[in-house]
Amino acid sequence: MAKELVFGHQNPDTDAIGAAIAFSYLVNQLGYDTEAVALGEPNEETKFTLDKFGFNAPRVVQTVSNEVDAVMLVDHNEFQQSVSDIADVQVSHVVDHHRIANFNTANPLFYRAEPLGCTSTVIWKLYHEYKTAIPKEIAGIMMSSIISDTLLFKSPTTTPTDEIAVKDLASLAGVDYEAYGLEMLKAGTDLSAKSEQELVDMDAKSFEMNGKNVRIAQVNTVDVADVLKRQAQFTTVINAEIAQDRYDLFVFVITDILNSNSKAIVLGSDEAKAAFEHTFNQTITDDVAAMPGVVSRKKQIVPQLTAAF
Amino acid sequence: MAKELVFGHQNPDTDAIGAAIAFSYLVNQLGYDTEAVALGEPNEETKFTLDKFGFNAPRVVQTVSNEVDAVMLVDHNEFQQSVSDIADVQVSHVVDHHRIANFNTANPLFYRAEPLGCTSTVIWKLYHEYKTAIPKEIAGIMMSSIISDTLLFKSPTTTPTDEIAVKDLASLAGVDYEAYGLEMLKAGTDLSAKSEQELVDMDAKSFEMNGKNVRIAQVNTVDVADVLKRQAQFTTVINAEIAQDRYDLFVFVITDILNSNSKAIVLGSDEAKAAFEHTFNQTITDDVAAMPGVVSRKKQIVPQLTAAF
Repeated sequence: MAKELVFGHQNPDTDAIGAAIAFSYLVNQLGYDTEAVALGEPNEETKFTLDKFGFNAPRVVQTVSNEVDAVMLVDHNEFQQSVSDIADVQVSHVVDHHRIANFNTANPLFYRAEPLGCTSTVIWKLYHEYKTAIPKEIAGIMMSSIISDTLLFKSPTTTPTDEIAVKDLASLAGVDYEAYGLEMLKAGTDLSAKSEQELVDMDAKSFEMNGKNVRIAQVNTVDVADVLKRQAQFTTVINAEIAQDRYDLFVFVITDILNSNSKAIVLGSDEAKAAFEHTFNQTITDDVAAMPGVVSRKKQIVPQLTAAF
Repeated sequence: MAKELVFGHQNPDTDAIGAAIAFSYLVNQLGYDTEAVALGEPNEETKFTLDKFGFNAPRVVQTVSNEVDAVMLVDHNEFQQSVSDIADVQVSHVVDHHRIANFNTANPLFYRAEPLGCTSTVIWKLYHEYKTAIPKEIAGIMMSSIISDTLLFKSPTTTPTDEIAVKDLASLAGVDYEAYGLEMLKAGTDLSAKSEQELVDMDAKSFEMNGKNVRIAQVNTVDVADVLKRQAQFTTVINAEIAQDRYDLFVFVITDILNSNSKAIVLGSDEAKAAFEHTFNQTITDDVAAMPGVVSRKKQIVPQLTAAF
């Protein structure tokens, strides 16, 4: 069987990398020949997780069609969030927990999505369905992915299945998931060493919404005011990206993971900003809008903006 | 939980109707409130199956947004093959075995596709995963769907899983699947009572292929020459549809289910017909091309034409 690559989205978070490692291991047990790779370097939280469970960071690839004919996507499906030459290879498998958009294939494929809190929760179900034992280290990285995506069950994306999976995986990994989870999330909130450019790009995704080109970036912190001290520099970086990539709207979401609130720097066309204000019933003052109770881009921002446009 | 409708594609075949009935029953057992409906009347083969296992034909709907906010799709995903107002409702679930194209959602969803011979085979797996007992009649209609889609395992789309599922379901239904399957397939090949318009529309699907509008219809028979006696009338009907719906290419595939061969009436633009000839390495003579060994639209026609365009 020809080798395939398995990878998550651009600007990988812990689930994009953890799900790739976990799914690659699973399908290799089932007879496929795959390698987990990544579309970028791991962030601080993911590095903490990889170190903890003894993994090296996956090899970073810029293109895939020079290596393989077919790929497996985890934690994304939208082509603009995937590898640059995704249209040149066959997508044989997808495991995901997002909406489906800007995705198409010429051939039937294995596609498994469920509206759960994390792709690694879906993969945890697949291990059970395929009666495949989960090694201790793989359990640790899948658990970390679910804790990351659900903010330790505080995100409204969390489902009972995510909690069951974390408890099962924590027991396999031999970890106290609550203590470990807080430590891991905190490792991801040390933003001081990062440049404004790095923070704006770190967890940013593009969305096509009825012809509008929307970019939504997110950082987690325990001190929103501290991050907003750098607003002027963020604005410069974001306006340069808007000019270069012609975004109609750029939303940079700063999420307080302790209190489950966000503030956002919102830049773009007047029309798009008005749509944002109307959608979230918030005024943008000096380019900043409050987003009370909002922590999930997938559930609390993307569908609402998609409907608005 | 608000009621949802479950349905297969336009011009329903046995799997489009059987999978809707089987998936609706499964999710109702899991706590959803759904009704299986159809986007058209059952064909002769499906009527034979519904009669055999004691089902009425599902209610035919033209629109769904007047009844429900959300729907579940089986055996299709491409919007142009779905209900006319599919863009006005939320798609909460999809179970399918086709390529993904012209499909998008604003929200995360349950999407389950596998490259198996039949959607009902995927649903058979779901019954097992959710540990839900399959009633005798539901087993009968799922078995019939798989036999129909795989032409009793003769289609190249057939996988070992399809065969295992049919044997399991036949045992639950208390039916000799080989004798029953031949009888059922033969019931679907009595084309004499149908008008040319009915035969051209009966199992026809539209595909968007890189901007080209392609229509592929298929009928099964045990006597291709007998069907081709009506070529002049088919051509009149097809040319009228090309003029009305602006198809670039219309392929009417007449499949010999005993010998696993097809002939096709091919009409459309010179450019599209040339692409067809090149793709299948066949000459179109008097609007007819041989398609030796071809029985599966999904596996042997759609991917090849998609690649060509």
